[in-house]
Amino acid sequence: MPDPVGEFERIRAIVAGLPPGDGVVVGPGDDAAVLRPTAGHDLVVTTDTFVEDRHFRRELCSPTEAGSRFAAANLSDLAAMGARPRWAVLALVLPSSWTAAAAAAFEHACAHALAADGAAIVGGNLSSGETFSATLTLFGECARDTAWRRSGARVGDVLAVTGSPGSAGAFVALSLWGSPPSREHVPVAIVERFVAPPSRVAFALALAPLSAVHAAIDVSDGLVADLAHITEASGVGAVLEAKALPADDALREAARRLSAFAGQERGPLPAGEAGFLRHLVTGPSDDYELLLALDPTRLDEVRSLATTHGVPLHVIGRFVAGSGVAMDGGRGIESLVARGWDHFAS
Amino acid sequence: MPDPVGEFERIRAIVAGLPPGDGVVVGPGDDAAVLRPTAGHDLVVTTDTFVEDRHFRRELCSPTEAGSRFAAANLSDLAAMGARPRWAVLALVLPSSWTAAAAAAFEHACAHALAADGAAIVGGNLSSGETFSATLTLFGECARDTAWRRSGARVGDVLAVTGSPGSAGAFVALSLWGSPPSREHVPVAIVERFVAPPSRVAFALALAPLSAVHAAIDVSDGLVADLAHITEASGVGAVLEAKALPADDALREAARRLSAFAGQERGPLPAGEAGFLRHLVTGPSDDYELLLALDPTRLDEVRSLATTHGVPLHVIGRFVAGSGVAMDGGRGIESLVARGWDHFAS
Repeated sequence: MPDPVGEFERIRAIVAGLPPGDGVVVGPGDDAAVLRPTAGHDLVVTTDTFVEDRHFRRELCSPTEAGSRFAAANLSDLAAMGARPRWAVLALVLPSSWTAAAAAAFEHACAHALAADGAAIVGGNLSSGETFSATLTLFGECARDTAWRRSGARVGDVLAVTGSPGSAGAFVALSLWGSPPSREHVPVAIVERFVAPPSRVAFALALAPLSAVHAAIDVSDGLVADLAHITEASGVGAVLEAKALPADDALREAARRLSAFAGQERGPLPAGEAGFLRHLVTGPSDDYELLLALDPTRLDEVRSLATTHGVPLHVIGRFVAGSGVAMDGGRGIESLVARGWDHFAS
Repeated sequence: MPDPVGEFERIRAIVAGLPPGDGVVVGPGDDAAVLRPTAGHDLVVTTDTFVEDRHFRRELCSPTEAGSRFAAANLSDLAAMGARPRWAVLALVLPSSWTAAAAAAFEHACAHALAADGAAIVGGNLSSGETFSATLTLFGECARDTAWRRSGARVGDVLAVTGSPGSAGAFVALSLWGSPPSREHVPVAIVERFVAPPSRVAFALALAPLSAVHAAIDVSDGLVADLAHITEASGVGAVLEAKALPADDALREAARRLSAFAGQERGPLPAGEAGFLRHLVTGPSDDYELLLALDPTRLDEVRSLATTHGVPLHVIGRFVAGSGVAMDGGRGIESLVARGWDHFAS
């Protein structure tokens, strides 16, 4: 159906009703937004793009769900720096297949997810194009020189992860199994984590003042791939404990279904449910969970804070001298190859 | 040709050799960049997207030229706020038709144009997609509460514009006349302004402390369309003086060629060279020039500063009580309808 509105009407429809933000001197509607930073704080900036049919599919995610997940992807980067989200600008490229209402639903869902963690959309851009894409640039703040880095892990640090890494990869694998893609075969809990990843921002902000975090990254490529970014940047190695890897009922059910599908239809894949489970938890998956190198002497405090915030926190390994990522399976230690998402892999 | 490199290799190729920036605590390579704002300053943020075949065409612009023009589009927004450019993040969506070398050429040209005005690329994102697009978020600073707005024009203010508005529209009209599109029929000076729009940042930064600017916008839709944004936001009207509109030899030559083409091939269009010229100067065109509402008592100082900076500054009208934009053609005043670019117009 034609969508008989021009660029400025579309912008008005999208901007209308966006939550206002603190520290916004000039919001949408001028050549640029004007913002008031907090004295004595550093500015922490991340940018991320969602491209339709690469990062989400309309048949699997509504515009509202995609917008919410998109915000989560960006919020997770600030959580991984220990920074407080404040402001964002959103640039949309809209094809004719997206109505003004669908675009507004995407942006409003994004704005509301941002607002839940204290950030406001203060500007943006709207272009037409063949393919839908959205680029969000999110700005946060942290006290000067306190941002978490990937490079601070030390030998002896404890390795911990929040939530259930592998859930996003399970959603993708199970939803793409059928033709056409559908949520039909995906456990409900896995769907919920995919369309509305839980925010770890409040936990990160509570954790930051403890100075117990030596290094952090968010799981946006996959557990082993992201862990490898920490070990490389920090100049250390990491050993995962196979039996400590978190795998709740929903992930086990996902592994069971993948194993059954593979048995029916596909070629060589990790054998059995246990193989699928480990592959899910450690392989390509963008879960927006926190992967942390923790001071071992502060672990009890960190656990207690996680409990207070209702955040599942799992100690899954340790940092060691050397390099790379290995798995301790109980009968010896095996080196792992990091495999995360690669948008340009064939 | 296949381009056998993965996402991280591409990012490394693009990031390698980017100019470093001041105030960068953490640059590319972590979950987010960490920056050190200047005390007592406001943060000024703009974002813009270039989509291939909408904002530029490969057959008319090399990746280097497109990257340079893209930076100019964003720098111009900060110039129009009187803000000093400092940092930027760049998100690219790359189709398989763009080699890693072409993407790096685009980004490096963008980075060098930003660096010429004091800004550094401190992070970004890389996705694959069907269509090339680039989204730059540029942020600058200005002394607290000094950012220029669209809303400050007052009755009696002088209306001035820099450079030669209409040049970009002339480039588009003349280059698209033939099939295939080519620069063949475009005057060289018009091509130069399109692929490397002159920056007005240094002039704006010198002008800001004078407090002579009551309102500002950059010409990114078209002279009349952008002027209408000022009159609407300020609650005033504006009258353009037809004989004061700037039109140099290159624009006159462009109007002559368009008039000749139209006579040969096309239907109803503004009659004659004069009609084309006025249409070019006032109509849809993204020139990245400054449109200013100036305190009339400070005009001599502003002119002198423009001369010092080698910036052509033209007084083209005045702000009046009322609303909307009108043209004084010498034989009466005629209301104008604002027509700028509309990405969703059919």
